[in-house]
Amino acid sequence: MDTIIQAKILKGFRDSLPETETRRSILIETISHVFRNYGFVPIDTPALEYSEILLRKSEGETEKQVFRFTDNGNRDVALRFDLTVPFARFIAQHKNELSFPFKRYHIAKVWRGEKPQAGRYREFIQCDFDIVGADNATTDFEILNLMKESLHAIGVTDIKIHINHRGVFNAFLKKLQLHTVSEDILRIVDKLAKIGKDEVISQLIALFNDENKAQEILEYIEGSDTFEKTLALMENLTAHSTEAQEGILRLKKVYALLQELELTQYFVLDTSITRGLDYYTGIVYETFLTKLPSIGSICSGGRYDNLTGFYMKEKISGIGASIGLDRLLTALEELNMTVDEYNFIDIEIFYTNDNQITTYQKLAKTLRKSHIRVEVFPDLKKLPYQYTVAEKKGIPFGIIVEDNDALTLKNLKTREMHKDISVENIVAIVKNALDNSKEE
Amino acid sequence: MDTIIQAKILKGFRDSLPETETRRSILIETISHVFRNYGFVPIDTPALEYSEILLRKSEGETEKQVFRFTDNGNRDVALRFDLTVPFARFIAQHKNELSFPFKRYHIAKVWRGEKPQAGRYREFIQCDFDIVGADNATTDFEILNLMKESLHAIGVTDIKIHINHRGVFNAFLKKLQLHTVSEDILRIVDKLAKIGKDEVISQLIALFNDENKAQEILEYIEGSDTFEKTLALMENLTAHSTEAQEGILRLKKVYALLQELELTQYFVLDTSITRGLDYYTGIVYETFLTKLPSIGSICSGGRYDNLTGFYMKEKISGIGASIGLDRLLTALEELNMTVDEYNFIDIEIFYTNDNQITTYQKLAKTLRKSHIRVEVFPDLKKLPYQYTVAEKKGIPFGIIVEDNDALTLKNLKTREMHKDISVENIVAIVKNALDNSKEE
Repeated sequence: MDTIIQAKILKGFRDSLPETETRRSILIETISHVFRNYGFVPIDTPALEYSEILLRKSEGETEKQVFRFTDNGNRDVALRFDLTVPFARFIAQHKNELSFPFKRYHIAKVWRGEKPQAGRYREFIQCDFDIVGADNATTDFEILNLMKESLHAIGVTDIKIHINHRGVFNAFLKKLQLHTVSEDILRIVDKLAKIGKDEVISQLIALFNDENKAQEILEYIEGSDTFEKTLALMENLTAHSTEAQEGILRLKKVYALLQELELTQYFVLDTSITRGLDYYTGIVYETFLTKLPSIGSICSGGRYDNLTGFYMKEKISGIGASIGLDRLLTALEELNMTVDEYNFIDIEIFYTNDNQITTYQKLAKTLRKSHIRVEVFPDLKKLPYQYTVAEKKGIPFGIIVEDNDALTLKNLKTREMHKDISVENIVAIVKNALDNSKEE
Repeated sequence: MDTIIQAKILKGFRDSLPETETRRSILIETISHVFRNYGFVPIDTPALEYSEILLRKSEGETEKQVFRFTDNGNRDVALRFDLTVPFARFIAQHKNELSFPFKRYHIAKVWRGEKPQAGRYREFIQCDFDIVGADNATTDFEILNLMKESLHAIGVTDIKIHINHRGVFNAFLKKLQLHTVSEDILRIVDKLAKIGKDEVISQLIALFNDENKAQEILEYIEGSDTFEKTLALMENLTAHSTEAQEGILRLKKVYALLQELELTQYFVLDTSITRGLDYYTGIVYETFLTKLPSIGSICSGGRYDNLTGFYMKEKISGIGASIGLDRLLTALEELNMTVDEYNFIDIEIFYTNDNQITTYQKLAKTLRKSHIRVEVFPDLKKLPYQYTVAEKKGIPFGIIVEDNDALTLKNLKTREMHKDISVENIVAIVKNALDNSKEE
């Protein structure tokens, strides 16, 4: 061990230090509980799969971003870049072992070789939940409701979920006889917020050279000021299209559910949401923080009508959403909405004498029996250092065991001391303080 | 989408279906809570790192097993094959941001290109916990105690933790003037249980051609029948070695703690445990299931005196253990100790009429307000199919909403029906049943 290797990590990757990782763990546990209590079950798939499976026939962007290599067995493999493609493969492979409609959640890492930039990493956690094998208003509503419920569970209540219907928009483009260039149109329309109306119009005209149609598209994607009025506008602009009317009917049913369940305050019908070139065919949605819309959508998704097309002949329709956990954590930090310190320890027993290590452990055991969470400081260090570490962690109480085994309880916040105190009184004081802090 | 891609996964990898993944999630959550309540904090590191960092100077076995490749930026990278090497790099890189002694846990996937065999996979979860920056009996005890506590928390109580001291064994070999071939000796000694005494003796003689010394090694690794007697034997066989006496003293202190804390029933002093060629220098341990020892150690580790030597000049001593979660899950399955069905739903509201979807959701909302966990069946299907799915999931109650909105509660286990029942009575019956099942 003569030469030291410089400790460093790859560009676009990052370590998660205890404070961040604790927040992330608690967030994941809380969201998982909500999912489970709504009947969603967890699954997992390998991080590494055959490139053929993950990339399918996609060329270009996806391929460039993927960590792909030849393994020691000469197989062409890649790290998953999302959880949707592995889910499609999973469904095709295990369809006979599952009951449908199937409701699953999957919270796991994915990897993309994107250009690293603020808030963008090459390794990040996705948090997906889907219902597959049903195409109805109930499941549309269930996902929308669960988006709101899971975000509320982690304290994110100031949200607006923008919903739209991709099938209706496709039908609208068909009616305008522009469906052959719909991909290009989606690309332009998606930039409305960024480039403004005039630029959208001029790009559309450049594409298909028809000012009237360009204006009609703009009218559509600008929508109106209420859910009902925007819905009426969509209906007018797509009249006589059976396909569109089906989508409109679905939106009406979903809206009726939102109204009856008193949830409309969280939802906006926003005809400019298209979810880009994704494979969605029905309702699509994005979620914005009212206080920090600039960070972008923190939970997005939509309905698709053929999840597993690459892997099996049967079509399976479904609907899902994905919470951008890392983006959400960044947002919570910017909004000062994170819990500053997560502390799981109620009492630190200080380590001041090597001859008393048994006393510390026995005391810890006794206190733990009373459901108090105790840590014995792990080494003989100067007491001020031990205080500093305990305070930094946010531990509310400390115990000093005197040389004659007498106990001193110290409130590490108020500095109040209780000398020569009994274990019973320690339990009483600490439990009382914990109960009070819960009530606050 | 003309040609179908055969859905398959890589050899040695596997999907985790809902039943298994639920068990795994609950196990991880439970263990994490124990860790946190003992003052351990979580961290995370990237799955992908520079090969130079992960492989250090190791050649041969490790290198062959690693998923290593050149990324799109022409960097030589590899997937982590354990959590210890990244932890060492993490400590060196972030030492100024952490307080020492530092107690961390890390539960995450690692990848090894091993030959797939029963119970061995190329992707598996490691669950590590370590205390670094302290070298004393308290931290040795703390890790041993936490091994027992975390396994108890998940219902694994029939365990024996076999402990030994690698430093004492090294000193013993030094006394025998065999330390120059100690790696080869460890390799042979490690096989005692597998190949038997006679074969160990003959392999040792083949190595250094001294029958007396071979017999003395055998005497050492066979130990005696109690903790005290084995300790006395170690002490005798290493007399006059200061290095060994330090280790013996440490073992005595740890044993005193185990006795005072009434934990000796879970511990065995086993001088045949060496943890192979690992970097341990102090106490080492392996954990066996009393009812299924053949599955091997489910939790192992030890003390090391230079975790970060490759990445920084300061030496940092520490002690840690790793729970083999996947092996443990397999063992629990073999012992029929797994919970057969994890169900998080108390009532399934059946979906029998498209015109009542609002009624279902409103009913669900009302019941959820009473802290009952409710799922609305996600699609209009024949009622017997909905029953079957709900029963398979282990959901105890179902509600049928009649066409006139009257409610029927059905106990899905006893088939008992309550017709025309009020929501209040549903809450009362279900809560009562849940309370009773908790008491069982």
